[in-house]
Amino acid sequence: MVKNISKAAIALHKKLGGKIRIESTMKVTSREDLSLIYTPGVAAVSSLLAKNKKLARDYTIKSKMIAVISDGSAVLGLGNIGPYSALPVMEGKCALFKTFANVDAFPIVLDTQDPDEIIETVVRIAPVFGGINLEDIAAPKCFYIEEELKKRLDIPVMHDDQHGTAVVVLAALINAAKVVKKDFKKLKVVVSGAGAAGTASAKLLHRAGVKDIIMLDRKGIINALRPEPHKRSLARLTNPRRVKGGLQEALCGADALLGVSGPGLATAADIRLMAKRAIVFAMANPTPEITPEEAKKGGAMVVGTGRSGYPNQINNSLVFPGIFRGALDHKVRQITDEMKIKAAKNLAALVKNPTALRVVPGPFDKGVSQAVARAVKES
Amino acid sequence: MVKNISKAAIALHKKLGGKIRIESTMKVTSREDLSLIYTPGVAAVSSLLAKNKKLARDYTIKSKMIAVISDGSAVLGLGNIGPYSALPVMEGKCALFKTFANVDAFPIVLDTQDPDEIIETVVRIAPVFGGINLEDIAAPKCFYIEEELKKRLDIPVMHDDQHGTAVVVLAALINAAKVVKKDFKKLKVVVSGAGAAGTASAKLLHRAGVKDIIMLDRKGIINALRPEPHKRSLARLTNPRRVKGGLQEALCGADALLGVSGPGLATAADIRLMAKRAIVFAMANPTPEITPEEAKKGGAMVVGTGRSGYPNQINNSLVFPGIFRGALDHKVRQITDEMKIKAAKNLAALVKNPTALRVVPGPFDKGVSQAVARAVKES
Repeated sequence: MVKNISKAAIALHKKLGGKIRIESTMKVTSREDLSLIYTPGVAAVSSLLAKNKKLARDYTIKSKMIAVISDGSAVLGLGNIGPYSALPVMEGKCALFKTFANVDAFPIVLDTQDPDEIIETVVRIAPVFGGINLEDIAAPKCFYIEEELKKRLDIPVMHDDQHGTAVVVLAALINAAKVVKKDFKKLKVVVSGAGAAGTASAKLLHRAGVKDIIMLDRKGIINALRPEPHKRSLARLTNPRRVKGGLQEALCGADALLGVSGPGLATAADIRLMAKRAIVFAMANPTPEITPEEAKKGGAMVVGTGRSGYPNQINNSLVFPGIFRGALDHKVRQITDEMKIKAAKNLAALVKNPTALRVVPGPFDKGVSQAVARAVKES
Repeated sequence: MVKNISKAAIALHKKLGGKIRIESTMKVTSREDLSLIYTPGVAAVSSLLAKNKKLARDYTIKSKMIAVISDGSAVLGLGNIGPYSALPVMEGKCALFKTFANVDAFPIVLDTQDPDEIIETVVRIAPVFGGINLEDIAAPKCFYIEEELKKRLDIPVMHDDQHGTAVVVLAALINAAKVVKKDFKKLKVVVSGAGAAGTASAKLLHRAGVKDIIMLDRKGIINALRPEPHKRSLARLTNPRRVKGGLQEALCGADALLGVSGPGLATAADIRLMAKRAIVFAMANPTPEITPEEAKKGGAMVVGTGRSGYPNQINNSLVFPGIFRGALDHKVRQITDEMKIKAAKNLAALVKNPTALRVVPGPFDKGVSQAVARAVKES
């Protein structure tokens, strides 16, 4: 199955030679057209913008164009494979931006992986764009890059691996709690992976009221003695019961396992350590932390993955098109936590009667991007 | 007339809110489509490119995407008005790339005007692109930037204000010589303006066999004592008769005046100093060096400008779409002088019977971009 998908994907990409294309927004068929969109007419528009550069948001593609930016340092679950290898993923995102929310987005992959050079480069090309979607940039530098860009730019900046994932995880968990008939805020949640997605998901869940969260990385449960600043700050938010050890200790009696680390994390035996009616979201791409079959064997009641092809695709493609649609429509300068929580609630509410096989809407369901976009203004 | 064009152009730009848009090259309507263009299928393509990044030219938009890059330091004839004001011009170019040669092009305007920072930034974003069109960057830094980028990148780099203009000037002059019944190579040519367009035009004319060229800048006829290196190198190529002085001295007995400086250069009285059946190309945009009416009053036989709306539009829009079309189609790493000269000859040959009112094809004439594109392979 996966092998066939790979083969078909490679053939399709070769045939397409690029998943997006540029079109003129106006048919240019006469010298008169030319004199309006190019010289001499365009000089009047340039002169107008020279007086007030803020008008670029009304008269140019800055009104609608999102940059999808990556250095290729953490592409899908494939790791640091560089900018050229990241490009097909970024193009795919741009195609989805268009498909799901009619957002124009353009991929920029960078021939540098130095955080300060990345920041500098994005700042320099920012005049063209109305928003910056950072993508597949490794932790912990992704945190620094996002923070700095938010300070330096007057357009919204969002690292989607962090916040897109966090929003859809929150939405899925709200509905999964209903399915397993547990109080959402009292869920005991284990997050495996303290990279971009894990960190942001834990923080957003905490912000939304979930207080019992245990985070793990390769070295086990995260505590305040870790050398990395972002892990120490996570330790302050998480593990209120002071559990020590690794995955199995963390899973004892847990209600939900969020996998944002990589394949081979857990077995059915591990899942059996969890509380009854457990929730397992194994979101690594392309290969989940545990297969849905194996998770069910371990007794999990609600299972989701990051992939299309299984039920419950917990994938940020439900979020990023709508959130930037909303940001552009309402010309906001920042995408706030309140907007993200509201977006998750709107997304969850789209599923009228959540079941074990349906805790999030499908990407092609009606109203998804609109529900998310609306949150920007409602929050 | 011009006032109305300005008003109409401003209204149109506001209505369009950007002259280009992004489209997906494939309609994405099912989860299966999603699994091919995004996860998990795209991972196979990324893995393939991780093994050989050169395959990006077959599997991604790098196969077809040109960057139109400006720092806004020399926009049209408006001067240094910055990146935001440059954006409408760059978008216009991208729309013309698509309209005239089905080339996908994306505008990048830069929030820096430092030559080394510009080079650095372009190198960092180059993985996305199959070619770099530099645009509206002031002389002399444009020469350095282009040279460095040519050295550092393995995709074609062309500063269109230089070479696009030079090609269309050469084409127009080849045909104008026929109209005025003079030997092209023996033309006495005066070039007013030693910026990007003037420098490249003089060099390409020289390369194509025109030996009597006099160049002027604001200080008069350029000689070997000038402090700027690029002007000293021009002095070596030009002014074989060692004429001294300013525009009037240069124009005495000249066959052609190429204006690439700015409005208010010459009057009918100046043109009367020229040889009989004079050629005047006044190419500053949006306002020419001398109006066609005034040039004719001075006795000029063939008159061209850079604008649409007059006969003989000597505008690089005849060249850049086709030259990059050819560069992409034939996957060349550099656009050479031979290609440019051949492109000019092909362009000139498209006008079967040149007349005073028609020394170059119109931008909407059939076969223009194809004739230019062909030159990349023929030379």
